[in-house]
Amino acid sequence: MKPTRLMLAGLGNVGRNFLQILRSQADLLRDRHGLRPIVVGVADSGGAAVDPAGLDLDALIAQKAAGRSVARMVKVGRPGMGAIDIARTVAADVLLEATPVNLQHGQPGLDIVRVALERGIHCVLANKGPLALAFQDLAARSDWDRPGLPALRFSACVGGALPTINLGRRDLAGARILKVEAIVNGTCQGILRAMEAGQDFAAAVAEMQRRGVAETDPSLDVDGWDQAVKLVIIANAVLRRPTVLSDLTVRGIRDVTADDLRKAAARGERIVLLGSATRDDPGADWRLTVEPTSLPMSHRLARMTGDEMGVVYYTDIAGVQHATSEEADAVPTAAAMLRDVISIST
Amino acid sequence: MKPTRLMLAGLGNVGRNFLQILRSQADLLRDRHGLRPIVVGVADSGGAAVDPAGLDLDALIAQKAAGRSVARMVKVGRPGMGAIDIARTVAADVLLEATPVNLQHGQPGLDIVRVALERGIHCVLANKGPLALAFQDLAARSDWDRPGLPALRFSACVGGALPTINLGRRDLAGARILKVEAIVNGTCQGILRAMEAGQDFAAAVAEMQRRGVAETDPSLDVDGWDQAVKLVIIANAVLRRPTVLSDLTVRGIRDVTADDLRKAAARGERIVLLGSATRDDPGADWRLTVEPTSLPMSHRLARMTGDEMGVVYYTDIAGVQHATSEEADAVPTAAAMLRDVISIST
Repeated sequence: MKPTRLMLAGLGNVGRNFLQILRSQADLLRDRHGLRPIVVGVADSGGAAVDPAGLDLDALIAQKAAGRSVARMVKVGRPGMGAIDIARTVAADVLLEATPVNLQHGQPGLDIVRVALERGIHCVLANKGPLALAFQDLAARSDWDRPGLPALRFSACVGGALPTINLGRRDLAGARILKVEAIVNGTCQGILRAMEAGQDFAAAVAEMQRRGVAETDPSLDVDGWDQAVKLVIIANAVLRRPTVLSDLTVRGIRDVTADDLRKAAARGERIVLLGSATRDDPGADWRLTVEPTSLPMSHRLARMTGDEMGVVYYTDIAGVQHATSEEADAVPTAAAMLRDVISIST
Repeated sequence: MKPTRLMLAGLGNVGRNFLQILRSQADLLRDRHGLRPIVVGVADSGGAAVDPAGLDLDALIAQKAAGRSVARMVKVGRPGMGAIDIARTVAADVLLEATPVNLQHGQPGLDIVRVALERGIHCVLANKGPLALAFQDLAARSDWDRPGLPALRFSACVGGALPTINLGRRDLAGARILKVEAIVNGTCQGILRAMEAGQDFAAAVAEMQRRGVAETDPSLDVDGWDQAVKLVIIANAVLRRPTVLSDLTVRGIRDVTADDLRKAAARGERIVLLGSATRDDPGADWRLTVEPTSLPMSHRLARMTGDEMGVVYYTDIAGVQHATSEEADAVPTAAAMLRDVISIST
């Protein structure tokens, strides 16, 4: 069984969880899919580690659990190299991009992905930044636009393991989408539901960080930017509308008070941070918004727990399709990356 | 654009709806997917019609709307031929199998599919019978078991447009499924919800038939067999457990009374016809059951309307994935067939 060579850029929560599921699911990958993935290169903020024969997964996991850079590992450590260097030089089949999100310039992720695609390496992203800033550019360099080019996949970018993109593109392949509604920022959902239960805002934020759900910079979540970026990705990938962040109207949950939540409950409603894509008719442009919204309890997305995310697609011939994902930590996000690796490799 | 040649066996509700969406989505298929499907053969209970250059879609739709067999169409009509004959002789890329379900011997659908696969023709099923009776046999004749063989797809067999199989296999490709719960018989869901609203059983059944949701023989729905067959398909296709109907414990909704429903509501619960796959540990066999079940209102599947179907997958690394589909008639089932045609052809 020829091994699938993976490179992993970024060893934060998602990257570390990905290494762990590579280990826990090894038998399943071999028996169910005939896959034998090996990690030939990794990079964290302190440097890189490289081994064309495949790095020792246990050693990698232990190194990160001890809080040490992979660059310090014996023999395989490369202190002078970073993620962009392994993207440029290491021979691999798939690069997994999980460096921190940056919404100003998208770096280092954007260059890492461009370099990898240029070299014919498939890319699996958990980092939303490159897609939010340069979707059409990356699409043009990948199988998104032309079948012969390397794959560009980003299941993990739109709500953890929630199969937002697959549902919208693959399952609704023959349908016209009339409207989309999404609650795909786990942090805001968790904060609002915790505030409903009596916790104060600051404590709720801290809890989401402790669980590894919040972004490195939680204001990206709280001010609605994370959800907005996901809506940008949905608009590009599912609605096939070239979209950038400035096309959206965005408002976060900073001004939502416990009193607002109480009043909504009294009305039989629930306040959520809702992302939506709507339009008055098929010929008009989409209206793309992220804002706190009071939903009637009868709405599909009004009854999710603090750990759930969901999306609703209203269509012409395929009825109304709805999906939710319940996730307590960052493991399912890593599972979504694994979904993409399997899809590319089989 | 080379046309994709389709054959359609069965022109009941689903078949007729499929013809209509081929027409309504023609532009979308061409512009979004580069597909130009033509129907080269069709068969209904009165005979067949064949045209290698592609049958006139408007004429076909009009013929069926007028209640006439396609065999009576001028020039293209073939009174002496049936579905098995077009499956044997017509040159086509994809056969769509939508003849009535038969759970005793699976005919004529089972032979039609075998003949088509033998000829290298891809098969898209809306007819559950062949899969319930002979899943492993059909899998062995198709790309399910070996990549070079023709495709076998059945999105439309497991809850209308609900992407039950795609969710379980593709989105959870790297995960272990721990438990499955499904409400995928629209007729029983509709009947129970109508009875909750005060309608009596017989009137509720008649309504589901009028809307084209109930099976040709409604006892298949009411006695739980339709849901059971869908669970057989899920067990084979998603849980990868060779399964036949006799492996399941099945009880339908015939004995559920309006009083039962009222008492459940008073307890804060809801009675549904639930299909489940559970097991005590990964090494044990699956327990597969279909039975009326009282769910707490907090359960994901307890709050669906009479037009909704849903499935829940509990997993090891991908959290809990849940999907619902709201469908008022048989059009979304046809949309699911179109999903498969697109997936095969692109």
